[in-house]
Amino acid sequence: MYDRIALVGIGLIGSSLARVIRRERLAGEIVISTRSAATLKRAEELGLGDTYTTDAAEAARGADLVIVSVPVGASGAVAAEIAPALKPGATVTDVGSTKRSVIEQMGPHMPAGVHFIPGHPLAGTEKSGPDAGFADLFENRWCIFTPLPGTDPQALERLSDFWRRCGSNIDTMDAEHHDMVLAIVSHLPHIIAYNIVGTADDLETVTKSEVIKYSASGFRDFTRLAASDPTMWRDVCLHNKDAILEMLARFSEDLASLQRAIRWGDGEKLFDMFTRTRAIRRSIIEAGQEIDVPDFGRQAVEHPHKG
Amino acid sequence: MYDRIALVGIGLIGSSLARVIRRERLAGEIVISTRSAATLKRAEELGLGDTYTTDAAEAARGADLVIVSVPVGASGAVAAEIAPALKPGATVTDVGSTKRSVIEQMGPHMPAGVHFIPGHPLAGTEKSGPDAGFADLFENRWCIFTPLPGTDPQALERLSDFWRRCGSNIDTMDAEHHDMVLAIVSHLPHIIAYNIVGTADDLETVTKSEVIKYSASGFRDFTRLAASDPTMWRDVCLHNKDAILEMLARFSEDLASLQRAIRWGDGEKLFDMFTRTRAIRRSIIEAGQEIDVPDFGRQAVEHPHKG
Repeated sequence: MYDRIALVGIGLIGSSLARVIRRERLAGEIVISTRSAATLKRAEELGLGDTYTTDAAEAARGADLVIVSVPVGASGAVAAEIAPALKPGATVTDVGSTKRSVIEQMGPHMPAGVHFIPGHPLAGTEKSGPDAGFADLFENRWCIFTPLPGTDPQALERLSDFWRRCGSNIDTMDAEHHDMVLAIVSHLPHIIAYNIVGTADDLETVTKSEVIKYSASGFRDFTRLAASDPTMWRDVCLHNKDAILEMLARFSEDLASLQRAIRWGDGEKLFDMFTRTRAIRRSIIEAGQEIDVPDFGRQAVEHPHKG
Repeated sequence: MYDRIALVGIGLIGSSLARVIRRERLAGEIVISTRSAATLKRAEELGLGDTYTTDAAEAARGADLVIVSVPVGASGAVAAEIAPALKPGATVTDVGSTKRSVIEQMGPHMPAGVHFIPGHPLAGTEKSGPDAGFADLFENRWCIFTPLPGTDPQALERLSDFWRRCGSNIDTMDAEHHDMVLAIVSHLPHIIAYNIVGTADDLETVTKSEVIKYSASGFRDFTRLAASDPTMWRDVCLHNKDAILEMLARFSEDLASLQRAIRWGDGEKLFDMFTRTRAIRRSIIEAGQEIDVPDFGRQAVEHPHKG
């Protein structure tokens, strides 16, 4: 689909891209670049690309498609680095979880004649690094583009096709709306998960070993999100501040109201609050974004041979 | 192990017990009782027991072991109902998620010569009802007893053996500590999950269909707990109020501090908060209470034939 694809950043997302590009033969050549020599060496050991360099500009030189997969706080620096090396007609995209900030950081560096199309594949796991990637990561997941006014429709269609062949479904929306949507479906859940795991870690009356031992009764579900990459999530918090603070405020208000219902023993209100949430999970399963087996299918993995 | 076991309540826990008792041949006879005629009929269709009745006292009459598996708010009424029918030397236990309240509710009804041993198997899924149960539910999960002073050690040992043969590991502690531990490992996570799903449901700027579509980016992890049985969780909130309010207060304080770090752009603090939580998940996996595959092993279920 593209003669030469440069992957700048080779963590969970970058290395998953490398694998699916290879499997689906989407590039003539895959060039891999990352700042850390150790990570680059690992990518080479895994055979993720064709050529390897710690110099992002060298990777971008002559590439038809450059995919920047770095923590969003590093987007501006990467854009400045690769800009002089970009060839006319090249497409530059990213995979960052916040879009307004990435556009502000990368946009000003992009030369005329280069198609800059901000993107965000909604896919990931709690693991990070080049070993964590896998070719199926984007299968049946959404990839959202937040194109700028004046974006070349052909370049956008070609990039959409690329992502479809990686397994994704495509959506487009404006960057501001993206950041608001992601604040509720992704950023707030991660922050809440980090927070509750931290609260448990600080208790004096309940030991850490008790929390660990008895975690199957609910707590362990939160630990998956709370095991995500700290650098990535620090940057998300710093770069989608307004939308996150808005969602946090709403969450806290709702929690105060629930707390009041508990304090006053308002069983009817509690029952109502606990009833309406069931329907949402059903809808998510129907939309093909979750599996319809209890316990996230953990049982199927734990007891592969039992009923 | 027991000649006659009476199961009062045949939801997720009761019906899982019925299945494992049958599989492991732990009873000469299984008597099933539940208040709802429709649920009782379903239990009979599923062949979960030997005899069936909507009368809890009739079920308890002549039983060597009575296991009460009802929402904790109903424990007192059930105890009053079965008390006159209990035979001397019988053991009565329960599976409720709060223990101080259950002891207060059931204890006063228990006749002399009956062994009342409060218990709590830390096992469950988001599904409820007799169809949701399965024989492996208690496998490698903890069952906590909160025995009262003067409990007969032989009766306790026999009941412990019973639960071990259901697959559980056994722990004992006092009821107050149990309620505090469960408030953090189970009750707070469920309340937070219900709350965040409710917050998302109320937004004006982000549509419900967007929340559903993009839920794989974090939100869907919360929906499992938020799909749990509303009656059970209303009762937990009403019957473990003090410990839950204590944990909610700590959680909210921590969240306010995190919110402040986001507002002031304190990247260092955010990074520290997001780093320490990773270790807890590792420990939970090492303790055998979670599986070591990304995404809760959803991928393994979604793509059973891929790498």
